[in-house]
Parts: sequence; C-alpha cells; structure tokens
Amino acid sequence: MKAVILNIGDEVLSGKTINTNSSFLATSLDKLGISVERVVVVGDNKEDIAKEILEFKNSKYDILISTGGLGPTHDDLSKEVIFDTLGYDLIENEESLNKLSKFFKGSIPRSNYKQVLFPKEAIIVNNELGTANGAILKDKDKHYFILVGPPTELNPMFLNTCYPYLKTLRNEYNLITEYNIMGQGESYFEDLLQVLLNELTNVTIAPYANVGMIRYVIKASKKYEAEYKKVISSFEKLMDNYIISKSECLNNLAEVEEVVFNYLEKLNFTISFSESITGGMISSLFINNPGASKYLKESFITYSDEAKIKYLSVRKESIDKYSAVSSEVALEMAEGLASITKADVSFAITGYAGPGGEKDKLGLVYYAVKIKENLHVFDASFNGNRNMIRRRAMLFGLYKLVVLLKEELKKI
Amino acid sequence: MKAVILNIGDEVLSGKTINTNSSFLATSLDKLGISVERVVVVGDNKEDIAKEILEFKNSKYDILISTGGLGPTHDDLSKEVIFDTLGYDLIENEESLNKLSKFFKGSIPRSNYKQVLFPKEAIIVNNELGTANGAILKDKDKHYFILVGPPTELNPMFLNTCYPYLKTLRNEYNLITEYNIMGQGESYFEDLLQVLLNELTNVTIAPYANVGMIRYVIKASKKYEAEYKKVISSFEKLMDNYIISKSECLNNLAEVEEVVFNYLEKLNFTISFSESITGGMISSLFINNPGASKYLKESFITYSDEAKIKYLSVRKESIDKYSAVSSEVALEMAEGLASITKADVSFAITGYAGPGGEKDKLGLVYYAVKIKENLHVFDASFNGNRNMIRRRAMLFGLYKLVVLLKEELKKI
Repeated sequence: MKAVILNIGDEVLSGKTINTNSSFLATSLDKLGISVERVVVVGDNKEDIAKEILEFKNSKYDILISTGGLGPTHDDLSKEVIFDTLGYDLIENEESLNKLSKFFKGSIPRSNYKQVLFPKEAIIVNNELGTANGAILKDKDKHYFILVGPPTELNPMFLNTCYPYLKTLRNEYNLITEYNIMGQGESYFEDLLQVLLNELTNVTIAPYANVGMIRYVIKASKKYEAEYKKVISSFEKLMDNYIISKSECLNNLAEVEEVVFNYLEKLNFTISFSESITGGMISSLFINNPGASKYLKESFITYSDEAKIKYLSVRKESIDKYSAVSSEVALEMAEGLASITKADVSFAITGYAGPGGEKDKLGLVYYAVKIKENLHVFDASFNGNRNMIRRRAMLFGLYKLVVLLKEELKKI
Repeated sequence: MKAVILNIGDEVLSGKTINTNSSFLATSLDKLGISVERVVVVGDNKEDIAKEILEFKNSKYDILISTGGLGPTHDDLSKEVIFDTLGYDLIENEESLNKLSKFFKGSIPRSNYKQVLFPKEAIIVNNELGTANGAILKDKDKHYFILVGPPTELNPMFLNTCYPYLKTLRNEYNLITEYNIMGQGESYFEDLLQVLLNELTNVTIAPYANVGMIRYVIKASKKYEAEYKKVISSFEKLMDNYIISKSECLNNLAEVEEVVFNYLEKLNFTISFSESITGGMISSLFINNPGASKYLKESFITYSDEAKIKYLSVRKESIDKYSAVSSEVALEMAEGLASITKADVSFAITGYAGPGGEKDKLGLVYYAVKIKENLHVFDASFNGNRNMIRRRAMLFGLYKLVVLLKEELKKI
C-alpha cells in the first residue's frame, strides 16, 4: 500500500513551523509496510487543496492523510474542501456535538460549530486534546484520513484511531534492519558494497549520510525473507568493524556514544578525556548517556599549550619539537591524563580546526588512547569548516574507541 | 514572484530526516518578498521527479528550488532527471572538474564523476563544504535552482549564490529586523509585548521559539517604514536586557556564544569553565568561535564530587552539608577555578539533569561566575528530558554571562 501526505497550512508553507508531522506519519506508516510516496504542503487555499484531492483520487496511491486546517477560524477549510471535492455532504455528528457542548459547557461558539460537521459515512477520529475531531473515510478503495495540524494533538489521534484502522488493512509487514556505520566516507562504502548492490533484486539497501556517520537501511517484503537474510549476512561481512550498532526496530539505532557507554559498562572501565580541538564536545556527548557519572568522573579541556603542560605534564620540548598537534603530544596527553585520573581508559585528542594556521595541516587530528597499560595512537584528516572538522574529529574518535573497546572485550 | 520547493530524497520521504530545508528556504525567500506556494517531497525516483518538473514547467509559479539527490551514489539522480526533462544536455563543467580533482588529489572516483556534469547554460552554485556543486538555470522565464540535501551544505550554497541571484530579480524589499531573545519563556515575552502587539497594523512581530532562545522577527513593507521604526523602538525598549543580538541581514543573527566572545574581546578578558551538569558543552560551544584560543586556555569537567574536591578545592564539608548541587558548591567551584587558572572570568555550573535522584530537584541548576574580584551567584530551574535540561542550563548560563559582561563593559 502506498500513501500520500497532504500538509495544509500557511504556517508550514511559510517555513514558520517545521514540518515534523510528515516525518511522524511516515515513520509510523513504515512500521506497517506502508510507504509514503509523496508529501505535499499547500496553504489554506481552496483551489490548491481541491487540486491535490482530485489528483490523489485518480492516482495509483491508496491512502491520503491530510493534516491541518480543522480549526475554528475562517482560514481553516480543509474538511469542507476535501469532502466537497469527494462529493459528500456534511451533517451534525452527535459524538462531536456532545464533545463540544461539554467542552464549552452548553453553547458552542459560532466559529466552532463547523467542527461538529462530518459526512455520515465517516468514522470519527476523536481528539482528546482539542476541539477539532478528525475523520476517516473510505471511498472507492481509497482511504482518507483527515487530521489536525498541531503535533501534540495529531500524534495521539493517529496512534489511537488511525493506526489500528490501518493495521486491519495489512496482513503483510516489511522486514527492516538499520545499521549505524562509521569510520569511512559514503563513497568508500558505496565502492565496498558495489558487488552486493549490483546483485539486489527484491531487497533494498539505502544509505542516509550524516556528518561523521551513515545510516544504512536494508528492507524487503516478508515474502523475500530468504533473500533478505542472505543480503543481511553479506552486508555484515563486508561492513564488519564499521558497524557501530544495528536495530530491527524502527528509530531505535544506538548512537556511537551509547555504544561506547555499553562497552564501558560491560568492561566495568572508567574513562576520562583530555580534549584540545574538540574542547569538551566528546565529554559532553558521552554525558548524554544517563548514568554517565558511573564511568566518567572528570575530563580536561586543555586548549592552550600551557594547559597541556600544566595539567597533563606534557613536556615543553615535545611541543617545541613536534608542535602541539602531533602524535607525540597526543601520547603525552594520554599518559599524563592516565596518571592523574587513574581512569581505565584515557583518551587524548589534539588537532587543527582552523581558520588560520598552516593550510596543509588544517583538519589534521591526532589521537592517543591508553587502555589499562596499552597505548594506541592514530591520526586522521577531515574536511569541512571549523565546526564540521571538530564534529567529525569527535565522531571518528568515538568510532575508534568502539573498535578498541571491542578488542578489549574479546580479551576477557 | 511565487516559488515551489521540491525536496527529493527517500530519507525525507520516509520521515527519517525531518525536512528543515523547506523551512530554511521559505523563510529566506520571504525576506525577498517571494512566497512559497507549494512544497513537494518525492523519493529518489525518476518518474516522480520528472512529473513534478513538468507540472512546474506549465504552472503559474516562477521559481523552483530542488534539494537533494546530487550525491555520488546510484540513487542520486535529481540533476540528470531535471535537466533531461527540461531538454538540456550535461557536459563536463571545468570549475567542478578542477574542484573534484583537487579534492580527490588527482583521480576522481568513478561514482563521483557525475558530479562534474552540468548543462553549459547553467550557473554553477559552488558547494564549499562538499563535492556536490549545484546549478541555477533560467529557462523560459522560469528559474530553476538545483541544490544539495544536507542543510550544512545547502544553507551556505543558497545564501552565497542563490540569494544574491534572486535579489537581482527583485526591486522591492521587505524591511526586516531579527532578534535573538533569551532569559525567559515565550509566554513571558508574549505578555510583555501584549500592548505593542495590539497596536500593530502594517507591521508584524513573529516569535520563532527554540530550546533556550526565541527569535523574534519584525517585518513590514518598505512603504510603512515610519511605523516600522516606531515598532522597532518600542520593541527594544520593552525587551531591553533580553536582547542578545540583532540583525537586519539574512540569517546573520549572532548566537549567544558569539556575543560572549565579542564581549571578552572588547574587555580583553580570559575565561575558564568548570562544568558539572553540562559536562563540557559550554566550553565546546564557546570554542565554536574561531579565535577562541585567545580567551579560553583551559576548562575542567568535574562531574564527580571527588573531581570537584581534587581539582577545584571544593570542601568536602560543603558537599556533605549542602550537596554538590547548591549555590555554596557552585561558589567554591568558581573560586577554585579562578585560583588555579587565573582567568579573568571563572564560570562554574552544577545541577541535576536526571534521571533518578530527588524528583523535586530535577532541573535545578546553580551557577557562580567570578569576574575579576566580584562573585555572582544565581540559580534557575528547567523542564524537559535530560538533554533538554542540560542544553537549557547551558544557554541560560551564557545568557547571564552576556548580561554580566555588558555591565563590566559599562565600568570602563
């Protein structure tokens, strides 16, 4: 089954309100194997709304969900236009009438009266949090869901009434696995997967690239389960150590800081960071994890050379000889950090985020991680502006931390 | 002039990515008096993209802006489909070829090669932050803007190349002033502005609320300049100390960390943070400022009680007596920080972000700021989940820092 979402409202169109409704609806429908093929936003305008309804009526799609324009004001006209276009009359709906009488303690204001009018063929979608009820209407094998705009009202309306209705229409679900992939860029993975991608027939692999990470989604209809399982297995073999986390539920993929946290928990290791280029970003992200205080007690932001020397006992000669952005200094930072904090994992990072400085060193980052007695030193180079470099440097460091902690776990 | 936005990409369609691009574009176009009349989202699908282009070609609208589908992977096909539908051939564009050769240091990967192909009639929209350039094409009185999907790349591309291009098409501007407002919630400001709001006739004041800050936009057509100026003056009188920054240009509103940076620069003051609840978030945000190293040398993330005692000389008795989340401990953190770092401004923050702990203390945050010899202590309480509390605590702290530094500046 295929769906179209029609968001109605000048607020969304003008950009004043960010359209989170279509995202909420699409991810919810995806769980039922219903794909959204088209999202359209139009203003509170009779002609534009009617045009979309007519187009949908004659389309190959099965489900239309409209949001917005059910309020009491003169520019709220979604319900009237949609049902008029489809050729249905509106009559007083008893359930809605009772609801509004109760809400207004007797006399319904004139502007709200239109909120009790629905086609007699419609199923009412009760709005627990507002005066505007919605409706579901089946017309010639197509299903129309006429819902409100505000997300706080829309979400329960959809989940309580529309989702169960849609579920009865479905007897076939999609198989979905999502992966959080890190450590290389999108084109690297595209090349790596080329052979697998060329072989796909009934399974899709889609990358969703973000700064410093890529989400891969593998999907197939239930009837192609055997092929799906083979693809999953090949994918995991190819991607191996780049896989940070995996999920078969929707919107449940662990972020890299969560994965680091889980490894520390399993290993019962404490961690401490000494951050130069990232300036506290890594520690702060790690502390996003509830319960972080059990594993992180302290961290240092040693942004200047003096701070590296003063707090982490980095040698001035090392900075003079190799510069503050070097594997030697990263190493001394990690050693110094370990000796004062006694953390099981001491992570140091130093790099150039620009602007200014030597052009060829821009984006260069050195890392040192001391885990118990073992030191690991590595470096990487990143593109982008100052903050993209800093963010990428952080995420790559956390990615490497996952790889290193995974190795630690194998030892026990 | 009327515009249509076409967002292309399975990730937006499937709801995995929230469509912030259309909001960014619509608000930017609004400043030029260009209204967005329709937003359409389709997948990376040849047929659907071509259909929209044909529909636009025969529509009453003047401007089409597409986003997404310019990447190197097999499912990126926006450029090819759009120009093919309009009947333009793609050839190697020298500027893009040079850019990619440089980026890949010689040999452009096979999958990226298509990113150098454009119609010879197109104006290239350089993408400073990625490999995918965009294009502007004028075809029979209609203007096509073919841009990338990731907001971090799209925004500068639009502002640097498309906005100036569109500006030449317009000869009537709206007067616009934007304000970054902090320190209270939206309803507080709504009440504060009530009298002014009731008086408006040809000027609009619109709030755009975000976590921890509100952007107010005051707008009027050029012909109502006198009224506009009066409203601006009243607004500034009412909002006074809550105004963090102000801008009459597009998307140029200084963020709070930038304003803090500017005050430190004027005062020639260094700064240092000791962060508990925010765990490095404030330092890291401050370091977003290019040149931050001149003012911030070091910061401490003292997440545990032990770290507060060990590094900042907070007294164990104070923690035992008042708890680590108290004005007494915040004060000792700031004092300890000042004595070891010798920074002109020593900022300490401690609070409860949950989950767990005492319910009535959730969201409670204590701050202490030592500026030269003067100590300022204050507290605040925030709602939301763990990370919203942390983020709000950070932003409120920076807001107060602006107020305090403004006072310092008055002294000299």
